[in-house]
Amino acid sequence: MKLNEIGVIRSEYQTRKETPRQGFHSDKLCTLVIKEEYREASLDLRVGDLIQVMYFANKADRTVLRNTSHHRREERGVFSTRSPHRPNPINICIARIEDIDDNIIVSGLDALDGSPIVDIKGYSKRLHDGLMEKYDK
Amino acid sequence: MKLNEIGVIRSEYQTRKETPRQGFHSDKLCTLVIKEEYREASLDLRVGDLIQVMYFANKADRTVLRNTSHHRREERGVFSTRSPHRPNPINICIARIEDIDDNIIVSGLDALDGSPIVDIKGYSKRLHDGLMEKYDK
Repeated sequence: MKLNEIGVIRSEYQTRKETPRQGFHSDKLCTLVIKEEYREASLDLRVGDLIQVMYFANKADRTVLRNTSHHRREERGVFSTRSPHRPNPINICIARIEDIDDNIIVSGLDALDGSPIVDIKGYSKRLHDGLMEKYDK
Repeated sequence: MKLNEIGVIRSEYQTRKETPRQGFHSDKLCTLVIKEEYREASLDLRVGDLIQVMYFANKADRTVLRNTSHHRREERGVFSTRSPHRPNPINICIARIEDIDDNIIVSGLDALDGSPIVDIKGYSKRLHDGLMEKYDK
């Protein structure tokens, strides 16, 4: 399966150590620079919207199947975690749109500078609430 | 960017019309058949866990940039929607693990039979709750 780079993330984070543990812990702004040929797909995004940004963690180790995490010492299979190190390192981070010009300015993103954007999806609180009700969580 | 198929989804849905609008509206079971070489990554998944299943919608139209949806007549840019038709058609569906043998049996998945699995991530209610608090939603 081949993915097209739809754009690139510009952020202040040059190394993984600088990134917040969860994107929303940070108020720093990042810029989603969407390629000209894909801009039509972002036409209905609005300031204040929450979006799921899917980006390729191009510095991740794709050979890792088990890993430790921030809060656990024992190794776990990566499919039960959200570690960026995994066979297909596509990270998902929910961000808030703060401004829109030619590009999309967001807060709450944890991506390294230069990460290729794979996809952007609307984030639905209603979908989450429906899930939690269904599964009694 | 190239993705590896980590496994395949076996479901009762042969056509898009058969799939539920949201996976969790259905109680039908689907099977995640993980390739032998990636099984170590799924070792710590447990019955009852909610997981994010990322799969490749290999029947989607990757040229679509604007689309209508179930509940809206006017076209919208696909990045503000969750339509499967988009330049990189990776769908995300939250499912519940119902059983584990060599494979992983889940409920709540909306995928067509034969969809390649791209990734599985643990689903964190705490992460969502943190987000909602932060953004006052």
